[in-house]
Amino acid sequence: MSTSATDGVVRVALLGCGTVGSQVVRLLREHGDDWTARSGAKLELVGIAVRDTATERDPWVPRELLTEDAEELVTRADVVVELIGGIEPARTLVLRALTSGATVVTGNKALLAAHGPELHAAAEAGDADLYYEAAVAGAIPVVYGLRESLAGDKITAVLGIVNGTTNYILDEMATRGLSFETALAQAQELGYAEADPTADVDGHDAAAKAAILASLAFHTRVSIEDVPVTGIRSITAEDMAEARDSGHVIKLLAVARRTVTDGTEGISVRVHPALLPAAHPLAAVHGAFNAVVVEAESAGRLMFYGQGAGGAPTASAVLSDVVAAASHKVHGGHAPRESTYAELPLHGPATTAARSQIKLRLADRPGTLAAVAGVFGEEGVSIDSVRQQRADDGVASITIVSDVATEAALDRTVARLAEEPSVHEVISVTRVEGA
Amino acid sequence: MSTSATDGVVRVALLGCGTVGSQVVRLLREHGDDWTARSGAKLELVGIAVRDTATERDPWVPRELLTEDAEELVTRADVVVELIGGIEPARTLVLRALTSGATVVTGNKALLAAHGPELHAAAEAGDADLYYEAAVAGAIPVVYGLRESLAGDKITAVLGIVNGTTNYILDEMATRGLSFETALAQAQELGYAEADPTADVDGHDAAAKAAILASLAFHTRVSIEDVPVTGIRSITAEDMAEARDSGHVIKLLAVARRTVTDGTEGISVRVHPALLPAAHPLAAVHGAFNAVVVEAESAGRLMFYGQGAGGAPTASAVLSDVVAAASHKVHGGHAPRESTYAELPLHGPATTAARSQIKLRLADRPGTLAAVAGVFGEEGVSIDSVRQQRADDGVASITIVSDVATEAALDRTVARLAEEPSVHEVISVTRVEGA
Repeated sequence: MSTSATDGVVRVALLGCGTVGSQVVRLLREHGDDWTARSGAKLELVGIAVRDTATERDPWVPRELLTEDAEELVTRADVVVELIGGIEPARTLVLRALTSGATVVTGNKALLAAHGPELHAAAEAGDADLYYEAAVAGAIPVVYGLRESLAGDKITAVLGIVNGTTNYILDEMATRGLSFETALAQAQELGYAEADPTADVDGHDAAAKAAILASLAFHTRVSIEDVPVTGIRSITAEDMAEARDSGHVIKLLAVARRTVTDGTEGISVRVHPALLPAAHPLAAVHGAFNAVVVEAESAGRLMFYGQGAGGAPTASAVLSDVVAAASHKVHGGHAPRESTYAELPLHGPATTAARSQIKLRLADRPGTLAAVAGVFGEEGVSIDSVRQQRADDGVASITIVSDVATEAALDRTVARLAEEPSVHEVISVTRVEGA
Repeated sequence: MSTSATDGVVRVALLGCGTVGSQVVRLLREHGDDWTARSGAKLELVGIAVRDTATERDPWVPRELLTEDAEELVTRADVVVELIGGIEPARTLVLRALTSGATVVTGNKALLAAHGPELHAAAEAGDADLYYEAAVAGAIPVVYGLRESLAGDKITAVLGIVNGTTNYILDEMATRGLSFETALAQAQELGYAEADPTADVDGHDAAAKAAILASLAFHTRVSIEDVPVTGIRSITAEDMAEARDSGHVIKLLAVARRTVTDGTEGISVRVHPALLPAAHPLAAVHGAFNAVVVEAESAGRLMFYGQGAGGAPTASAVLSDVVAAASHKVHGGHAPRESTYAELPLHGPATTAARSQIKLRLADRPGTLAAVAGVFGEEGVSIDSVRQQRADDGVASITIVSDVATEAALDRTVARLAEEPSVHEVISVTRVEGA
């Protein structure tokens, strides 16, 4: 049950009290007068659901509000802030809150990327609001940006550095010449990477965010299962050095674009490491920072930059959603509903055109480059640039950057190159973005 | 008279049909289905007020909608888009629209910075909404950012490059060694600067935007008359070269900060050229681009970057406001009202602490540096760094960067330096930001 807050009090329930949740509690207590002045509502924290009420908490967390009964807590709040993470029990609790008409504010990207349509349907059914600024890029208001501030434009592409862990690792590799393994170990030591780094380094966290951003940008349902992912494990210090020598950096990007395949408008959504020109705004995003570039038909190129994780920055995003929610409870109006009217088809990588860099080792003798170039030509893939480095042992390294081509054509090219007698090895294939 | 749009049609009136207005017309016509899907309303353009209906227009502007009677047009619209600019007749028309309950979307920074409180009061009286995303930094959604997306944080500073003309000029001076005069002439030739460049190069345009940003960030009324301004006319190519040699760039900044003077919390708002470290995110903002850095207690440093002017980018901001306005007309809710609850006092430059760079020419003989340093010490201004360059004629150039000090103390220091027998000339005093 949820009442509309006609008495000017909005009851807030917090689910989860980890790093972010604890900061939310602190901010609710420290700046209560500000939230009231800005929303017109007095925000009353009515309970904090945790797994174990006996666990030690930050000193500002009121013990009397702790409960292990999240299901009961949800029934007595106007706004439910879900910071448990993961699918269950978060999903059940959020669905229950929305169906009963309570506003939900969540930072749960995994839940949204896997079950977004179900959550939005529950919000619709309960005439409830769903906010999720904290789910993508921490404090950076890119969900607001796409959902509201850019509602008057046609977005053509979204490119984001949306995972701070991998950006930190790649940055350390680029600036200090570290191997992936050493940089990862260092990130783990500093607390930037988890003991099991899979979700970050294999790109799954970024893929969830890519799905959310693409859904908002293109008014089309995109689930995490629609997003092909390549992580950063195979990037070497040598790749980094070579990228720098050619005026590039390598970043793990979430990329969502409008595409046209065989005359059909659609979208392509991916996560992969990519070469970016050093002058691209995303190339200057260092350490654990996040940034999202939005390209729109009228606005041109916009960038949103800031801290993508951490207790206080993420709590800032949560609180902004809570203030907006409270304001709507008091003054009327609601959050934008799920917008899926465009229903654009997803174009898979095979039919999506992109530029790529292919690194080969091949015999250093006359005619081999011509043979390689011939393969590209026969598969209809134009070559943008070629750089060759000779070694003493009769083997040359060659770096080819293609023009825009479908990935299917590129895959065929690479497969045929691997069969060429003069080609010793296809070392790597990397996407090139932002040119 | 304005009706709430219960039939799902929202009547839009456009005042002014220049570069931006014409693009608004085009976007309303080209993407009407998108705006309907996103707002739930059919946007019907009911008229375009212009000074002279006989003037030639872009081919997509429907001649039958043109009228010279703006006052009459305003009475038959749900949403009035004001793109006339300047104070009158814009002020009278906007007030009339708001008082009658119509939503106003405006890009008029001069009007807002000079008469903001009056406009907001009219909106309150008419239970009407006032939107002005296009008034600051073109397509960059920084008004949304401050007014809504960051409502859950305490903003401590806003630093912006909000005038593309001056940024273009300074950039050309920095990268190509041009003088101010040559760079200005070039900007005029390319259409980036007006024939009368005063509003841009003397900082008045930036000051209007600074007032708007500070009002939003600090929930306090700030008018353009509260903003001390220094323009860029006195910046030389030599200043630029020296800034680069010391790892800085010179940018014209709008700066609004929370300050504490004699134990009282307040704010300081200014526009002036400033030295920025080359690694600061604003240092990489080139050409006619704009960017706004927001520093907040929880979120840390955020940056919004994009095109700050131009027909299509500014029209993108206008259309987003129109879509939001239409959505509220159909679904209920309204734009955030003016928020001035904090009522922080404005601290003038004299009491505001900042770092500065002072350039002097002085006699190159033993003891002069000690005398100069002595003046700083006696006025309580600490010195952060000193760089000295010797010339052959017995005169040395010296560049001193101060620690944080009040401007009053710095002014006294500079006045006394000018009186020192060994000091030939105080060449320049420049603020240092972003350190």
